[in-house]
Amino acid sequence: MREIVVFSGSAHRGLAQAVCAELGVELSSVEMTRFSNDCLQAQLQANCRQRDVYIVQPLVPPTQEHLMELLLMIDAARGASAAQVTAVIPHYAYARSDKKDASRISIGGRLVADMLTTAGVDRVLTMTLHAPQVHGFFSVPVDHLTALGVLAEHFLDDDLTDAVVVSPDLGNAKTATQFSRLLGLPVAAGSKRRLADDRVIIDAIVGDVAGKRAIVLDDEIATGGSIVELLDRLADEGCTGAAVACTHGLFVGKAVDRLSQHPMITEVITTDTVPAPQGWPDLKIRSVAGLFAQAITRIHAGESISSLFDGVDPALGPPQPKLFD
Amino acid sequence: MREIVVFSGSAHRGLAQAVCAELGVELSSVEMTRFSNDCLQAQLQANCRQRDVYIVQPLVPPTQEHLMELLLMIDAARGASAAQVTAVIPHYAYARSDKKDASRISIGGRLVADMLTTAGVDRVLTMTLHAPQVHGFFSVPVDHLTALGVLAEHFLDDDLTDAVVVSPDLGNAKTATQFSRLLGLPVAAGSKRRLADDRVIIDAIVGDVAGKRAIVLDDEIATGGSIVELLDRLADEGCTGAAVACTHGLFVGKAVDRLSQHPMITEVITTDTVPAPQGWPDLKIRSVAGLFAQAITRIHAGESISSLFDGVDPALGPPQPKLFD
Amino acid sequence: MREIVVFSGSAHRGLAQAVCAELGVELSSVEMTRFSNDCLQAQLQANCRQRDVYIVQPLVPPTQEHLMELLLMIDAARGASAAQVTAVIPHYAYARSDKKDASRISIGGRLVADMLTTAGVDRVLTMTLHAPQVHGFFSVPVDHLTALGVLAEHFLDDDLTDAVVVSPDLGNAKTATQFSRLLGLPVAAGSKRRLADDRVIIDAIVGDVAGKRAIVLDDEIATGGSIVELLDRLADEGCTGAAVACTHGLFVGKAVDRLSQHPMITEVITTDTVPAPQGWPDLKIRSVAGLFAQAITRIHAGESISSLFDGVDPALGPPQPKLFD
Amino acid sequence: MREIVVFSGSAHRGLAQAVCAELGVELSSVEMTRFSNDCLQAQLQANCRQRDVYIVQPLVPPTQEHLMELLLMIDAARGASAAQVTAVIPHYAYARSDKKDASRISIGGRLVADMLTTAGVDRVLTMTLHAPQVHGFFSVPVDHLTALGVLAEHFLDDDLTDAVVVSPDLGNAKTATQFSRLLGLPVAAGSKRRLADDRVIIDAIVGDVAGKRAIVLDDEIATGGSIVELLDRLADEGCTGAAVACTHGLFVGKAVDRLSQHPMITEVITTDTVPAPQGWPDLKIRSVAGLFAQAITRIHAGESISSLFDGVDPALGPPQPKLFD
Amino acid sequence: MREIVVFSGSAHRGLAQAVCAELGVELSSVEMTRFSNDCLQAQLQANCRQRDVYIVQPLVPPTQEHLMELLLMIDAARGASAAQVTAVIPHYAYARSDKKDASRISIGGRLVADMLTTAGVDRVLTMTLHAPQVHGFFSVPVDHLTALGVLAEHFLDDDLTDAVVVSPDLGNAKTATQFSRLLGLPVAAGSKRRLADDRVIIDAIVGDVAGKRAIVLDDEIATGGSIVELLDRLADEGCTGAAVACTHGLFVGKAVDRLSQHPMITEVITTDTVPAPQGWPDLKIRSVAGLFAQAITRIHAGESISSLFDGVDPALGPPQPKLFD
Amino acid sequence: MREIVVFSGSAHRGLAQAVCAELGVELSSVEMTRFSNDCLQAQLQANCRQRDVYIVQPLVPPTQEHLMELLLMIDAARGASAAQVTAVIPHYAYARSDKKDASRISIGGRLVADMLTTAGVDRVLTMTLHAPQVHGFFSVPVDHLTALGVLAEHFLDDDLTDAVVVSPDLGNAKTATQFSRLLGLPVAAGSKRRLADDRVIIDAIVGDVAGKRAIVLDDEIATGGSIVELLDRLADEGCTGAAVACTHGLFVGKAVDRLSQHPMITEVITTDTVPAPQGWPDLKIRSVAGLFAQAITRIHAGESISSLFDGVDPALGPPQPKLFD
Repeated sequence: MREIVVFSGSAHRGLAQAVCAELGVELSSVEMTRFSNDCLQAQLQANCRQRDVYIVQPLVPPTQEHLMELLLMIDAARGASAAQVTAVIPHYAYARSDKKDASRISIGGRLVADMLTTAGVDRVLTMTLHAPQVHGFFSVPVDHLTALGVLAEHFLDDDLTDAVVVSPDLGNAKTATQFSRLLGLPVAAGSKRRLADDRVIIDAIVGDVAGKRAIVLDDEIATGGSIVELLDRLADEGCTGAAVACTHGLFVGKAVDRLSQHPMITEVITTDTVPAPQGWPDLKIRSVAGLFAQAITRIHAGESISSLFDGVDPALGPPQPKLFD
Repeated sequence: MREIVVFSGSAHRGLAQAVCAELGVELSSVEMTRFSNDCLQAQLQANCRQRDVYIVQPLVPPTQEHLMELLLMIDAARGASAAQVTAVIPHYAYARSDKKDASRISIGGRLVADMLTTAGVDRVLTMTLHAPQVHGFFSVPVDHLTALGVLAEHFLDDDLTDAVVVSPDLGNAKTATQFSRLLGLPVAAGSKRRLADDRVIIDAIVGDVAGKRAIVLDDEIATGGSIVELLDRLADEGCTGAAVACTHGLFVGKAVDRLSQHPMITEVITTDTVPAPQGWPDLKIRSVAGLFAQAITRIHAGESISSLFDGVDPALGPPQPKLFD
Repeated sequence: MREIVVFSGSAHRGLAQAVCAELGVELSSVEMTRFSNDCLQAQLQANCRQRDVYIVQPLVPPTQEHLMELLLMIDAARGASAAQVTAVIPHYAYARSDKKDASRISIGGRLVADMLTTAGVDRVLTMTLHAPQVHGFFSVPVDHLTALGVLAEHFLDDDLTDAVVVSPDLGNAKTATQFSRLLGLPVAAGSKRRLADDRVIIDAIVGDVAGKRAIVLDDEIATGGSIVELLDRLADEGCTGAAVACTHGLFVGKAVDRLSQHPMITEVITTDTVPAPQGWPDLKIRSVAGLFAQAITRIHAGESISSLFDGVDPALGPPQPKLFD
Repeated sequence: MREIVVFSGSAHRGLAQAVCAELGVELSSVEMTRFSNDCLQAQLQANCRQRDVYIVQPLVPPTQEHLMELLLMIDAARGASAAQVTAVIPHYAYARSDKKDASRISIGGRLVADMLTTAGVDRVLTMTLHAPQVHGFFSVPVDHLTALGVLAEHFLDDDLTDAVVVSPDLGNAKTATQFSRLLGLPVAAGSKRRLADDRVIIDAIVGDVAGKRAIVLDDEIATGGSIVELLDRLADEGCTGAAVACTHGLFVGKAVDRLSQHPMITEVITTDTVPAPQGWPDLKIRSVAGLFAQAITRIHAGESISSLFDGVDPALGPPQPKLFD
Repeated sequence: MREIVVFSGSAHRGLAQAVCAELGVELSSVEMTRFSNDCLQAQLQANCRQRDVYIVQPLVPPTQEHLMELLLMIDAARGASAAQVTAVIPHYAYARSDKKDASRISIGGRLVADMLTTAGVDRVLTMTLHAPQVHGFFSVPVDHLTALGVLAEHFLDDDLTDAVVVSPDLGNAKTATQFSRLLGLPVAAGSKRRLADDRVIIDAIVGDVAGKRAIVLDDEIATGGSIVELLDRLADEGCTGAAVACTHGLFVGKAVDRLSQHPMITEVITTDTVPAPQGWPDLKIRSVAGLFAQAITRIHAGESISSLFDGVDPALGPPQPKLFD
Repeated sequence: MREIVVFSGSAHRGLAQAVCAELGVELSSVEMTRFSNDCLQAQLQANCRQRDVYIVQPLVPPTQEHLMELLLMIDAARGASAAQVTAVIPHYAYARSDKKDASRISIGGRLVADMLTTAGVDRVLTMTLHAPQVHGFFSVPVDHLTALGVLAEHFLDDDLTDAVVVSPDLGNAKTATQFSRLLGLPVAAGSKRRLADDRVIIDAIVGDVAGKRAIVLDDEIATGGSIVELLDRLADEGCTGAAVACTHGLFVGKAVDRLSQHPMITEVITTDTVPAPQGWPDLKIRSVAGLFAQAITRIHAGESISSLFDGVDPALGPPQPKLFD
């Protein structure tokens, strides 16, 4: 069997090292040079020839820098005769640019997918895309992992009496529903209303939250503004407190201040798909390094990835009969 | 300026003729041959050389037949040195196959988009895609029209006192909200719950419908099952009656029976993106042929399409400042 | 060595099962869903990761349905990280659309070849293409099998005294000549004349058939019209009877009636590249499942396919010196 | 309207000049440099920017040299921002390499078509491809002219009593049949038999030639071996003499000697798709420069090319109903 | 004739405005949105349909940001049905990454060229690429301008007695030679020596500079380190002073301090391909906006660009006979 | 592990056999047919299925013939289901056509690279490209070997007192510097001056050569004109004699006469990347067959190629820190 070689850009070396530790391989090093005109150049420091090369790089700020690093590393691996190049992108940030919701607008989610193909990637391994349709933007195979099981494990030891899973947005309530089933809890959701073209508010909560403790679930938290607004509504409805869980905890801008000191919040749980924010010792981080390592092992061995998520993600479970309309 | 030539497959010649009438051009004919081994062959009967060729074909049942006709006509037009080939697909049915919601599943929406490109299409003109992300599946420019204005016009002469716009699905309530603004009405939505992997029910209505008349808006109605279920919930909540409006009125299976005789329904409005069902004289059909003709004229003249929809579709309106998260 | 996984669409599960039986592998199942808008969706029910995937699907009526099934299965296999996807198309019906014999006509044979590549196929395994040039329409490797040996075997036990191999068309007499050598027989051919643009007749027989029994060989029989016309000419020339052999026995329209009751015909032999017609118990069917299984085994093991056909097909025999003009 | 610029490689400047004279444009010059390591370099000596560029180059011996010249000129024109690059290849010699008639053999006809596309060609204008399927090898539009009308004109003034059109090969008799209709004559054909893998003979004549004068029609004559053999058979059958006509008169090897002195031959007619052979003053050459010039004019003006051949080539005539099987 | 629309990213709006002023068109605006996860999104604020779109963006620091802006604007223009998209990249910084001078290294110059094509660019307009071979990295037409004439004009009014043009590097002395001919001056060059893998020094001056005033010419000045070293050598050789001229004046790091206060330097001349550095009022900047505007005008009108540079750049002059080896 | 199969075109069978001897495999044969119309056809005479196929063919005169042979063999290997096709091109002659140094000129180095990809090559193995940027013209991985070590070995046994390495061109002096370090010698270089557009002379020698023996190093010698001119200058400067070494010894035109009889020349050393010239028994040829065989072995085994050149070529050495500007 071909050997595995793992490289990391500068976006999140900690995760890459954790994945390598789980895999039992050394993280190979990369020399990333910045020229005086600010151009980047990547040199891979380990033999790639006929190897299965994995390059770990979530698209976190500074996003353009990290994207270019990733593209250059892919280009170098292909040029060095790698057998297969897999981009491991735990957080594919450009997934939010997934539609043409105004005239003459770029669709970054598709453009970046095409750029990765142009650079020479053979497969993408990612987690929790913002919209499931983004999968279809890629012309190469995508293995799409979920952190729902990892996040659910966190709560399974707790006393979940009177708890309810809450989705900030009714439009994305499907994932919250799955999550609630893993915990055996009911589900509720915020209902958003667009006041003007530049202002969206959460104006109602669908489902019963009075006297309950909420477990708020979101895919990505950036500035935390939506979460704070949701918590205000939950308080209005008589909810007594909230744990907040998300897969991609970016926590940029005022997010750390907003969330770490919010009176409703009892705890915030996230994963390590992106680096942890500074100055928030109480943030609870569950690692997905094990999941990524298992996925890489299964990809390498030609085993099914979906069985990793039996009982967690129906998209990855054994094929089932389905109904339409 | 280059000439326009318009062809139609067998899916919906009526619409193609109506578009041509609006454009003031003849519909050019196509010889579609079926070999005895069931293979199809297209021969375009008008000179395409250096022309702007438009091929009108919604993807309606028998869908695979109509898709292959479309691909063969595109292939023939490209081979005949057309300057530009635009596929006019008023209903892009494969848009529903837009994500990998189970292991090892095909993503037909992306595959068909790639097949159109392979056959030689230069641009796609379509209406009301099931999900806005499907736009990103195409590597060629897509002009994406909306029928909201046409449907809204239908209601503007009516007495709209006590009316409310209702979306069957909270996840897609954004379009209903736009529609409600055109009519100056409030909006409500059904909330779906998945009972089992093969069964989804609408278990609640978000928003106030008691004592009101509903205008139910959906993008596509096939068997009508979801609509009937929604109407039952609306009746439970004290709604007094419903008009049903949709862009793509397929009405297959038992849909005509279910909807034409439903006690809650006062009228059903649709457009002619797809052929009208048999045996339903009361169905009200508003033509979008004028919109398609205007879009073709503007494409041909290099004018903006978005201005066609000023005040109707923000995605097509003049660019506006926006906010994220 | 990588594992083999075999799937079948709905075109000809019997052949797929026979091939699997020869290979000693299970036929893996496919869930093919038809949405209420008539769109199809394929879900492969067995792990494809790093496997060599073979998808068996001849292009038989309803041809467009079967073609789309095939494309969706290929798309699903590629998306599921198959190591290699081989389309096993025992009858590539679109091969008849191989030239631009009129202005602005589609060339379906090339278009479908490109569509297969777009969907993600890596190799095609087929049998007896209508014209050898169709091979060049594919940009992926094609393994092109012949059924001549299988058909010849059928006759080798018979008394072949006074027999003559007859090709319906002089233009394709090359294959009949090969076949006649396998049987040690002389060869004759019909000579076609085009009466008008829409009418071709066979107006003469080249070669001596008087007092002989004919073995008529064709690549494909659809409605059987040409064969019946040939038999009339053979009768005129004093031929005493005919066995009819073909690789692809579609037998559509009135073919079963025409051929099963024709007074000149002593027997009709075909293969199972396509499903057998209903209501014709006397039709003799020789299976090519063994040939396809051997070809798959050799492809998988990296052995030569041509040696399968030593002495049968010069195109697949050991390389030989050749002469031009 | 964009301007036309015409260039010629070194294969056949005479034809390029004749085409330009018909078009009323100057032939623009090309500097073709041969480096001391035998590599070629093309520099176009006229502005190509936004022009319709036509590059005239039949693939005649030394074929590889002329092919590379053509590819380099296309590359230079594309790099110089030509609006459209059309390769005018009056004789596409690689069309004879159109099938995989032995294991592991190249298909040059497809490979060269792909190379032209790679170099940047937008359209190909050619004449009388060896097999009509070769059209499908190109992924860009091909305009395929015929010289039948030009060759027929030559004979129309003659006394055609007792004349018969003869095709050397029954397999290609379709074109001869078209030609015979233009002249109002009957048709006959040679029947080839393969003696061994390296030896083909013409062993019979189908059709009545006794006491008649033959007009032998072939697409291409290279060494003339097949023609001489056909003439021997015609003599055996009592044919009294023969005129020989072909589109592509390469006349290599001993062809000039063989044909100019053959006792059966009364005249040899060809066209100027390729340069005339040395030392054969009696060879009659009909120019196709006018046809190519008209085709270029029509392409440029966006007019139909097929109407150029009304009554000559059904493939280029007005669309007609057709029948299959 | 199609209209011209010009957009600018944030890299150098001043130059874009100057180009527009010369063209007599308005600079159209772009809404560039930065999401809270640091992803970018471009929305073009003017109709692009059937227009010739020009997007002005040199690749200056922050280079990755500006590159992504450029790619997103190209994507948006293509999606908005632009007739042609031209990237105007006055400084293509990634040109320095043009070779594989170590194992497993990225070749950014080629990768970025491919990414531009992937995004949908039809043509590139640039100035003074670091190495002429970089032209060949692009698969779309490149118009490559030179600032030599503009820089030379600056000196033509001066007293050039005792002046000598000096190239910092013998390897690139060809351009300096051209420049010296425009001024009628002799030429000299520094000779570089590599001391260790990480240290290059200029250890000699080829050509006579004693008692002369140098005009140092370089394509790009970033930190200015090489220039300072060259000036030390020139001083050693008795040179009395130096004017420094370059096309791309990045002046990053300590460059402004180093060069503005260097005792040998009498003046520094550059162009506005990149924005001017802060705090250097004495820097002399000659605008190339007029050249870019003329090039755009000529591209648009289909006129030759090379004639813009008659007598300046032999690469762009009228074709001339050449010699090899 | 997959098997290796090696083929050779007609350009340099001797080298292919030497490489095979080193590898311990048989050279497989190829039937190359030339049709009477001068078209070529390749048939590979050994099974390629799932093999790693290596095709040895330097681009030497007649260059176009050898290039076409190579492309046809690649096409045949791909069509025969080779696992990987590597073109072994010891001398990539089109590398000299690497820039657009005049208007509307072809860039053959890039075009031929694209043609190889079109034909189906997966990797290129070459030696000493004329300019390192040519590497970036290929979109497939390139392994780029150097003959410097092999040439240096030749001199290491000699008395090198008073020897100096001389590069004919300062622009390419970098390689000479590397070579001089391998020998522990100083380096000098010729300085070229362009007299007119069609005439370049070497007008000076940079570095001290008086009283020394030169070892002149060039990448390719074709007619030898530049070398002779360099030797004249060296003589002028008091150099006492010269050994001449080059990687690609084409020696065309008058080269053998010029160099074999030149009074300054003591010996000429080259390699066998190209066939040896006729009639020059004293020419010393060092074989690079061993290097190519080792590279093939390492490619096949997935080992690093760079370690082959430790201490020879920094581009292929272990990754090292680097500095820019």
